[in-house]
Amino acid sequence: MDVTVVGSIALDTVETPSGLNEEGLGGAATFFSLAAANYAPVHLVGVVGEDFPEEHVRLLQSKKIVLDGLERAQGKTFRWTGKYHEDVNNRDTLETQLNVFEQFHPKLPAAACEAPFLFLGNIHPSLQIEVLEQAKPKFVGLDTMNLWINIAQNELREVLKRVDVIIINDSEVRDLTGETNLVKGAKAVKALGPRIVVIKKGEHGCLLYSDEDIFSAPAYPIEEVVDPTGAGDTFAGGFLGHLAGTGKTDAATLRQAVIHGSVVASFTCEKFGPDRLAEIGLADIKARFAEFKKLAEF
Amino acid sequence: MDVTVVGSIALDTVETPSGLNEEGLGGAATFFSLAAANYAPVHLVGVVGEDFPEEHVRLLQSKKIVLDGLERAQGKTFRWTGKYHEDVNNRDTLETQLNVFEQFHPKLPAAACEAPFLFLGNIHPSLQIEVLEQAKPKFVGLDTMNLWINIAQNELREVLKRVDVIIINDSEVRDLTGETNLVKGAKAVKALGPRIVVIKKGEHGCLLYSDEDIFSAPAYPIEEVVDPTGAGDTFAGGFLGHLAGTGKTDAATLRQAVIHGSVVASFTCEKFGPDRLAEIGLADIKARFAEFKKLAEF
Repeated sequence: MDVTVVGSIALDTVETPSGLNEEGLGGAATFFSLAAANYAPVHLVGVVGEDFPEEHVRLLQSKKIVLDGLERAQGKTFRWTGKYHEDVNNRDTLETQLNVFEQFHPKLPAAACEAPFLFLGNIHPSLQIEVLEQAKPKFVGLDTMNLWINIAQNELREVLKRVDVIIINDSEVRDLTGETNLVKGAKAVKALGPRIVVIKKGEHGCLLYSDEDIFSAPAYPIEEVVDPTGAGDTFAGGFLGHLAGTGKTDAATLRQAVIHGSVVASFTCEKFGPDRLAEIGLADIKARFAEFKKLAEF
Repeated sequence: MDVTVVGSIALDTVETPSGLNEEGLGGAATFFSLAAANYAPVHLVGVVGEDFPEEHVRLLQSKKIVLDGLERAQGKTFRWTGKYHEDVNNRDTLETQLNVFEQFHPKLPAAACEAPFLFLGNIHPSLQIEVLEQAKPKFVGLDTMNLWINIAQNELREVLKRVDVIIINDSEVRDLTGETNLVKGAKAVKALGPRIVVIKKGEHGCLLYSDEDIFSAPAYPIEEVVDPTGAGDTFAGGFLGHLAGTGKTDAATLRQAVIHGSVVASFTCEKFGPDRLAEIGLADIKARFAEFKKLAEF
């Protein structure tokens, strides 16, 4: 089944202990798309500026990502500059230039509206509501960030009532609910609307919480982290992608989707930006999934 | 098979968001013993003062812990006072009174020397060497802490060459090796001697690393943490206890031992001090082990 994603497309300048990557392809919707495209047809809805390099378009096309909803606006593409610490679990944002993203209002082509799976990438909750007004999905996933929890919580709470799953990290759970205990935090987030809560714990695995299930997913141990940018977005892409690819959202499939998310995210970390994602396919993902299963069974 | 543990026995005054527990039974060797006693005969080697309450002795006896190596010295028992934050993953030590523990030199009774499994609790590495000079174990486990890494690293490195497994937390790995990446950290610790490295990540599960195996153990989600004091020590007790109980140290048994450690530690957190450990038996542990398996399978 098809999956639509709405979110940022960016040019990222990233410094990590492994090196510097200037103006590489970035953005939450980009990473999501490149991950999800391994499983299902993806409709990418976002905006770029006149300076967006054609080679990036070609990469997205090579993964058969549908770009009818990729708007080209006058001005410059959204840019993000960040520097990771020696411990790559921590980073500082050095600069954010919204550029064309500042005036972005999502316009979904007909086919994107009809996709049964929809992912609301990390954009202002009022834009996420605009997407929900247009689309007719069967299953909606949501990402957000501390910024919106702090400055747009009312709108965010509206969105939360209208989604099936939220994919959120542990610090966001604390900001949103005040809970430091993960299980209590998951319950508190669930009480805000989504029937499924997936809490990402960075390098430490995930907790999936719903009425039907609690799943404690282990960490996939990664020895060489070159650039973790986009790992969270590719997690979401692997997760929703697997659901869309199978067309199922039962408890067992949701568990596997969490592992698929972790597996795709682990690939992302191995090279700068989407360089590793550009190389891999479903066979690589399945091989690592099997390896992960062996790493975690007891 | 029998297991011997050498380490601290304390009276703990602990404040957590759930309340205050004054002068409760504490100490690393105590928690280890109460956990391991579910699996195998335990020989406890440590020191208490003249003020050590008889009810604590009776609790240890009720678990059939062999107390021939429990020295009673003139003076007061070791005391620790700590306060946990609202987020119980963090705590401050308010006071440490070494008392009789300051002059402690472990003296192992014959039966404790003969135990095939030995756990060197978190005491000064020079005392751990004194234990190794007396005992004749087949399999040795080690705990340590940042303090010894900082002030007695040479002695600690001597001990590391003589143990089979080290059970260590992620911040200690960073202090000992300078590595922030867990896999690299595990390799670096292993290079110092132990053939098996178990890295505890607090609420986030564990990583077991050896030449034969890498095991990424998920977290056991705990909703109500009343008092995490002793959770790490009971983890070690469940881990070594399971190995001693089965008499095996192959890769599959080591994986199960990690899960047993997590399970027993989860019980510890449910009440103050060893109150919950005092109530449970192997049947409770096995039931939670089975539940944990279901929580983590995919």
